[in-house]
Amino acid sequence: MWDDDRLCYGGDWNPEQWPVEVWHEDVALMRRAGVNLVTIGVFAWSRLEPAPGRYTLGWLDEVLDLLHDNGIRAALATPTASPPPWFSLAHPGALPVTADGVRLHHGSRDTYCAAAPAYRAAARRIAGVLADRYAHHPALALWHVHNEYGTICHCAYADAAFRRWLAGRYGDLDALNAAWVTSFWGQHYSDWAQVSGPRATQYLANPGQLLDHRRFWSDTLLAAYAEQRDLLRAANPAVPVTTNYVLGDWVPVDHARWAAQVDLVAVDHYPSAVDGGAEEQTALAADLARGWARHGHGPDAGWLLMESAPNQIHTAGGRMHAKEPGRMIRHSLAHVARGSRGVMFFQWRAPAGGAERFHSAVVPHAGPDSRVFREATRLGGLLARIGEAATGRVEAGVAIATDAGSGWALRHPGMPAPGLDHPAEVAAAHRALWRAGITADLVTPGDPLDGYRLLVLPALYLAGEPDVDWVRRYVHGGGHLLVTWLSGVADEHARVRTGGHPGAFRDLLGVRVEEFHPLAEDERVPLTSGGIGRIWSETVHLAGAETVTAYIGGVLDGSPAVTRHRVGAALSWYVSTRPDDETYRRLLVEAARAAGVTPVCPQAPPGVEAVRRRSGDRSWLFLLNHTGRPQRIPALGRELVTGEAVDEAVTVAAGGVAVLRETPW
Amino acid sequence: MWDDDRLCYGGDWNPEQWPVEVWHEDVALMRRAGVNLVTIGVFAWSRLEPAPGRYTLGWLDEVLDLLHDNGIRAALATPTASPPPWFSLAHPGALPVTADGVRLHHGSRDTYCAAAPAYRAAARRIAGVLADRYAHHPALALWHVHNEYGTICHCAYADAAFRRWLAGRYGDLDALNAAWVTSFWGQHYSDWAQVSGPRATQYLANPGQLLDHRRFWSDTLLAAYAEQRDLLRAANPAVPVTTNYVLGDWVPVDHARWAAQVDLVAVDHYPSAVDGGAEEQTALAADLARGWARHGHGPDAGWLLMESAPNQIHTAGGRMHAKEPGRMIRHSLAHVARGSRGVMFFQWRAPAGGAERFHSAVVPHAGPDSRVFREATRLGGLLARIGEAATGRVEAGVAIATDAGSGWALRHPGMPAPGLDHPAEVAAAHRALWRAGITADLVTPGDPLDGYRLLVLPALYLAGEPDVDWVRRYVHGGGHLLVTWLSGVADEHARVRTGGHPGAFRDLLGVRVEEFHPLAEDERVPLTSGGIGRIWSETVHLAGAETVTAYIGGVLDGSPAVTRHRVGAALSWYVSTRPDDETYRRLLVEAARAAGVTPVCPQAPPGVEAVRRRSGDRSWLFLLNHTGRPQRIPALGRELVTGEAVDEAVTVAAGGVAVLRETPW
Amino acid sequence: MWDDDRLCYGGDWNPEQWPVEVWHEDVALMRRAGVNLVTIGVFAWSRLEPAPGRYTLGWLDEVLDLLHDNGIRAALATPTASPPPWFSLAHPGALPVTADGVRLHHGSRDTYCAAAPAYRAAARRIAGVLADRYAHHPALALWHVHNEYGTICHCAYADAAFRRWLAGRYGDLDALNAAWVTSFWGQHYSDWAQVSGPRATQYLANPGQLLDHRRFWSDTLLAAYAEQRDLLRAANPAVPVTTNYVLGDWVPVDHARWAAQVDLVAVDHYPSAVDGGAEEQTALAADLARGWARHGHGPDAGWLLMESAPNQIHTAGGRMHAKEPGRMIRHSLAHVARGSRGVMFFQWRAPAGGAERFHSAVVPHAGPDSRVFREATRLGGLLARIGEAATGRVEAGVAIATDAGSGWALRHPGMPAPGLDHPAEVAAAHRALWRAGITADLVTPGDPLDGYRLLVLPALYLAGEPDVDWVRRYVHGGGHLLVTWLSGVADEHARVRTGGHPGAFRDLLGVRVEEFHPLAEDERVPLTSGGIGRIWSETVHLAGAETVTAYIGGVLDGSPAVTRHRVGAALSWYVSTRPDDETYRRLLVEAARAAGVTPVCPQAPPGVEAVRRRSGDRSWLFLLNHTGRPQRIPALGRELVTGEAVDEAVTVAAGGVAVLRETPW
Repeated sequence: MWDDDRLCYGGDWNPEQWPVEVWHEDVALMRRAGVNLVTIGVFAWSRLEPAPGRYTLGWLDEVLDLLHDNGIRAALATPTASPPPWFSLAHPGALPVTADGVRLHHGSRDTYCAAAPAYRAAARRIAGVLADRYAHHPALALWHVHNEYGTICHCAYADAAFRRWLAGRYGDLDALNAAWVTSFWGQHYSDWAQVSGPRATQYLANPGQLLDHRRFWSDTLLAAYAEQRDLLRAANPAVPVTTNYVLGDWVPVDHARWAAQVDLVAVDHYPSAVDGGAEEQTALAADLARGWARHGHGPDAGWLLMESAPNQIHTAGGRMHAKEPGRMIRHSLAHVARGSRGVMFFQWRAPAGGAERFHSAVVPHAGPDSRVFREATRLGGLLARIGEAATGRVEAGVAIATDAGSGWALRHPGMPAPGLDHPAEVAAAHRALWRAGITADLVTPGDPLDGYRLLVLPALYLAGEPDVDWVRRYVHGGGHLLVTWLSGVADEHARVRTGGHPGAFRDLLGVRVEEFHPLAEDERVPLTSGGIGRIWSETVHLAGAETVTAYIGGVLDGSPAVTRHRVGAALSWYVSTRPDDETYRRLLVEAARAAGVTPVCPQAPPGVEAVRRRSGDRSWLFLLNHTGRPQRIPALGRELVTGEAVDEAVTVAAGGVAVLRETPW
Repeated sequence: MWDDDRLCYGGDWNPEQWPVEVWHEDVALMRRAGVNLVTIGVFAWSRLEPAPGRYTLGWLDEVLDLLHDNGIRAALATPTASPPPWFSLAHPGALPVTADGVRLHHGSRDTYCAAAPAYRAAARRIAGVLADRYAHHPALALWHVHNEYGTICHCAYADAAFRRWLAGRYGDLDALNAAWVTSFWGQHYSDWAQVSGPRATQYLANPGQLLDHRRFWSDTLLAAYAEQRDLLRAANPAVPVTTNYVLGDWVPVDHARWAAQVDLVAVDHYPSAVDGGAEEQTALAADLARGWARHGHGPDAGWLLMESAPNQIHTAGGRMHAKEPGRMIRHSLAHVARGSRGVMFFQWRAPAGGAERFHSAVVPHAGPDSRVFREATRLGGLLARIGEAATGRVEAGVAIATDAGSGWALRHPGMPAPGLDHPAEVAAAHRALWRAGITADLVTPGDPLDGYRLLVLPALYLAGEPDVDWVRRYVHGGGHLLVTWLSGVADEHARVRTGGHPGAFRDLLGVRVEEFHPLAEDERVPLTSGGIGRIWSETVHLAGAETVTAYIGGVLDGSPAVTRHRVGAALSWYVSTRPDDETYRRLLVEAARAAGVTPVCPQAPPGVEAVRRRSGDRSWLFLLNHTGRPQRIPALGRELVTGEAVDEAVTVAAGGVAVLRETPW
Repeated sequence: MWDDDRLCYGGDWNPEQWPVEVWHEDVALMRRAGVNLVTIGVFAWSRLEPAPGRYTLGWLDEVLDLLHDNGIRAALATPTASPPPWFSLAHPGALPVTADGVRLHHGSRDTYCAAAPAYRAAARRIAGVLADRYAHHPALALWHVHNEYGTICHCAYADAAFRRWLAGRYGDLDALNAAWVTSFWGQHYSDWAQVSGPRATQYLANPGQLLDHRRFWSDTLLAAYAEQRDLLRAANPAVPVTTNYVLGDWVPVDHARWAAQVDLVAVDHYPSAVDGGAEEQTALAADLARGWARHGHGPDAGWLLMESAPNQIHTAGGRMHAKEPGRMIRHSLAHVARGSRGVMFFQWRAPAGGAERFHSAVVPHAGPDSRVFREATRLGGLLARIGEAATGRVEAGVAIATDAGSGWALRHPGMPAPGLDHPAEVAAAHRALWRAGITADLVTPGDPLDGYRLLVLPALYLAGEPDVDWVRRYVHGGGHLLVTWLSGVADEHARVRTGGHPGAFRDLLGVRVEEFHPLAEDERVPLTSGGIGRIWSETVHLAGAETVTAYIGGVLDGSPAVTRHRVGAALSWYVSTRPDDETYRRLLVEAARAAGVTPVCPQAPPGVEAVRRRSGDRSWLFLLNHTGRPQRIPALGRELVTGEAVDEAVTVAAGGVAVLRETPW
């Protein structure tokens, strides 16, 4: 993307929150820390255009010049994620409306409806002003459109746009009625004007409507992005354009579909677990980002960690856990190991006020005389030394399929159990492989599967005909397959496939599932393999497959829990419950081994994360020691962090990292 | 009701969700399963009248003819529980409004305000169209008006109707002000226009207003039903008309009062407990339905289980537990044993989409090659063989009083403790008797009490003067009485009766309760009888009664917990706490024995449910073995399921059923 | 205030809820109980003005005359806390609106917006009518304006008033933008019209806006009070005017600031804990009230317990726990010991209906033949005998600082942890001292600190420059200081002070806090002092201070948890975590002892609360025995309850009280 190969390093910088003398202090500190890229202007709309059509850009000129003078590149944001108060006052109809009909007010961020024409026009206008003025600024390295697209609305503009989108998708109402099964509960539409988004209603909503509403919003937000991108690109085609994805199943965005529309996949990642979970979440997020990038840009595409928290883990309960020493560097390296072109933080300097005044920062309230700034400086140096390792392609023999629609559909009301969660099942499969030391790629149905020896479908609930073909071709091409409960139960409209589950994959798996037995929250079913199953169980009939593991006790006593079906030379596994982590790990190791996939670094002890990248005949091994003890791993090559030759083994300090160039060149 | 005595068997059938070839498959399967009655047309409005005044009834003609050709009768529904989208678009003012003022939208079911004139007119119109066309169709056996009436609204139409209803009830504002005690917090009304339903307000609402609002809605929904019934009846007086009750304390419907307005009490029952609780809930639901039927139609009235789930228990948490083999048949027989004229399921065939795509079905997604369809077929045959047993009257010597108002009033804010629950107390008393093998009738205050030897009032909070008289006459007529805490504390307007609790029944019980001591959620008070009390305790002063059980420890140490007062030859018991289940069972056995009531089948072991029905000198004993072992019960007669003679004992298989004709004839 | 020195005794009386014969019974019972003051007319607006401008005051004339004839004084309320239904119907725009835009309806109490001109005008009108008629009534002893001011609104009137208030506070928008740090998330205001109160918005709100909105409402409600007070005062300057404060952190009222506007601080207090917590809450509430009174009226100011519950503790879960025998008298005496000029109950007679029909009452539903009425009668006699003791000034050597703003600000979203709670930290410090037998005064920043030897700042989050000066002057004047975590972190606008925490007090404490380590809910950190810390921990660097206690284990192992810094001859302590109660007690005893403060009555055993009041050379010792055993306390003097001389020791009965005149005179 850029003409040098340095890893990016920096974060969000908000000089507009500080007097000019702080700007100079900041830039000096950035240089000390090795920062080479900062994101600026996110949310600065009210400072750039304090009144309609009145622009105050002088300060931004200064900021960009200052960065350039100091050799720091800028990711310049369009500020459209936070319209100024004057905009909301002038266009109350462009404020978002909840499903209950409550119109949300200014006073936070993202207080707009992306389907409201006035908002879209104002957003194009301010983006155009920035494009005109800065498209050729020498500091400009990247356009950062908006911030974390992810809001929806239920206003009349949104309903009208939804109808247009549906008309485009379905052509006529008959197709819509069929897709949504409106014959249930008498919801048959006889005129387009009757159709709206799902609003507060008396009881359960229509699942087809819920699903399409999410898809509609993903496309609507994408269109809002794309029109900004187009005008930025037109101003200077040489500058790449992106927007930062925010992760989370609540986001009404199908990130895989967006990948082709950005020049660089950029993700914000904030783990929420405090214990080992943070490391597993980090690896998964990075692998997801890599998957999206490949989806959009091919197998060697890089991506960028656009936001991460230097010194905190924000737990789901709203507690800001201080990261332990070394942990930030391990998280950062985990991203780089898995394909990120750098490490960016939110945020450079902690603000004195505002809603996120206690959010993580490189320069905390206590100032640069702090552990976090010292660690950030250490990381800056480290990144400068390992750049070559980031040029290789991440090696993975296993692919895990995930798709936004399955995540949305499983959360619909009226499912056989509450809390069914496609992303959680993806995470469980990924975690099992991570613990086994096996790198996995995340793929989206339809992605090329060349080179993968095992494909895992974890609760991939929706499968349209093209998706079924995609899996069938892979299996018939000799690929191994592992499918878990709830996969392929429904079609692309979330209509249940009849005749026995999993309707889409019955034949490939050689089973027929007759009945679901969701388990109570604290219910555990023993398995003959020695572990337990939870969340779910099923009446599985063999139809060609053989039983690998059976249920013990209860109404399913002795009946199949895990099966294996031979298709050609390969195996198709079916897993009808969620095994405990250790049982799942053993099962996936067995399935991977049968498929010829082994751990990245079999010698790495538990708690040491190993990722290999390869470029031609060169390879690099990233080793992240998440344990509290030094770990010695047999190896040969040169360790890039220390620069030392390794001729027998590398010892990674407790909580430390090593990046080994494995092939002498 | 109908000219043959067969038990009804079938369920909700929705051919409008499927192509015609499936209709024929369905009818063939119905015949295989022994189905003789299906409910059709529920929610079909948008298919019957796809645009205002345009009717498409051809498909329904075909369906009814097909049923008739196959000897299956139809319960034809009016589809008014789900107005079509065009109706909502044309009449947004007929959409329901929440207490917060949120207008609910189309997109689910029941999206109407039953007080809105436009809705009522449209409902009459479509019902009239069906009446005109099908009132004399040979397949038509029953009109099924609407579905599960149970929604309320807070719109201006509703407020106006509420004012009219209040004016009818109270005559003048003085009476209303007195009933609602508006002198508290200065809520005195000086003009009818000031009165509305309870809307979102600053703090606690007025309990009198809350109570009357529920009563108003019960009457309003009843009026909506009655006007449809009247026009259906007018079209053909020979066809009975009903509507299916949905159970649950949230329903703003006083089902007992509705009973006189339907030709057949019909209930939908879905237990929510997974363990033994499902069987106890089933017995209670059936006894409630029988009580309502008697309230409306006299002691020998039958009723119909209109909906039940063939293969699932829907837990309160939203989990669909698969019923264990045999359990569906036991639940079905429990209803027949307790008076149902048949067994109807929701639903015949699982839909591919819609909000309830995973709801229970006789023909599940997996198709008829399934356990549930095989069990349903077995049940069909079984019902055909036991019809005679269903002609007898269910024998019960104990009556438990329940009333909708007490349930509503105890849930008002500002009660001495949260979670006070009249239905739960009714259930607890019923459960204690069920476990003791004693059949109980549920009665509504005012019902005839002839033949009952023990009357139980469980937390019957409201007691107006007529109710007090009703109990007094019963006791003075020699009846035994058992009253639990919170009964008779308030009058019919939920105004507290002063001078000592329970104001309504103090004299009959010979006690005076001075002070309530609600217990914390996990608090347990030991009783001298050996058990524990929970939820509640009281300072009880003896005023004629004697102490049966005293509290141990705490401020109530040694003071009465359970008392007994002799009135004439009979006993009036007062229970001032909620005993644990086993203690409650022993207490009720003691009270019943003192009243001369014994278990139905003393030889039946625990876990075997026994119900006797009697007709003249003939009697039948239903035996449901809820245990996991075969059970041998001494008996004499003929077992109708197998057709075998029983000359010493009948052995009921584990999880199985037996129906014994006890008297040779 | 009044010309006699009797302690007030009585409560809220609502004769408008009862027929006249009950009035006479009530007054007779009041005389029996020794009642000398009753509050009347609260919420009586709809009875006093049943239609706009139509007044029905005859009944109130009668009531006042009846009271006067019986020697009972009246606290006459203005009824403005509950506008009549006619008012709401006529002025729907004066009904309150939630942050979601829901307009609340009549049907409870407090259904008005205090910023709505129509409401304010109507309130002045009815207050004026009462003033005109009753200002010189001989029964009138006190004006009781409104009831428990504490509601807010988000309507357009409120927004306009908020803008006016902000303009008054900040002068120009630049100052507002700076105070609220609107540069974060692009919230910069360029016109006053853009500013509103915090409404439902997309995500986190601006903390500066939230804080000022609370302050605005406190001032707005105060203005509503003040205009009523002014016209009541004008009618007869001799009659004191007050309003009763309701406690609770949710109340948008800064009670300290209100104190100067009332003639007598009056508080309603309802503990919510059932175990010993009720006694600790009672002591704290009384000390708070005394602090407010001093803030407004100087060191010897009295205050009045205006409402308390005679026989119940209303738990947070909504359960009404019956107070154990003797407990009500101990609670009442605790208030008198700590400065209350009497004991008032809500309510005299339990209402038959209305939302609070089960609220506590002196004459319960069961009538006067009840424990509660007998105890109330005993209390009446007791109060008559101890009046002299209430003339002394409560002695306290420790001051705990609290302020409404810190309470509000810590509850803002986006804090480092959820549940941070200034009032809870004040309570924890107060409880630790209470358990140590040390009386504390509650002070507000800026209050005189003469005479205090130890000042405690518990999580006093906000500290503006004047507050910092206030603490600095105190310390430099030789005072000992103890500061806990989160104190002084932010300025008066809730902007974080940078450079190391606690920004406001770093130098006085000789520490620099670099990083916060909020603890998970169940996390406990061992301390070298033997106890544990919870909720919070910090990286504390010594900068002059010495370590008193260190953390054990984890990333903070060995680093300071509690420090001590010598400033002149005194010590400044810093506590960076919340110690368990016993550790906190020992720490505060140590800090107090170092400052020369000892327990009130070192001989009192645990569970006996001791408070000393002193007037010149006379002193009185209140002893409240909260234990279940008689307690003997060495003493000399005369016990006023029994009237007996004490020459060696006084024995206080289990659960009983003693009031000792310590100095013979």
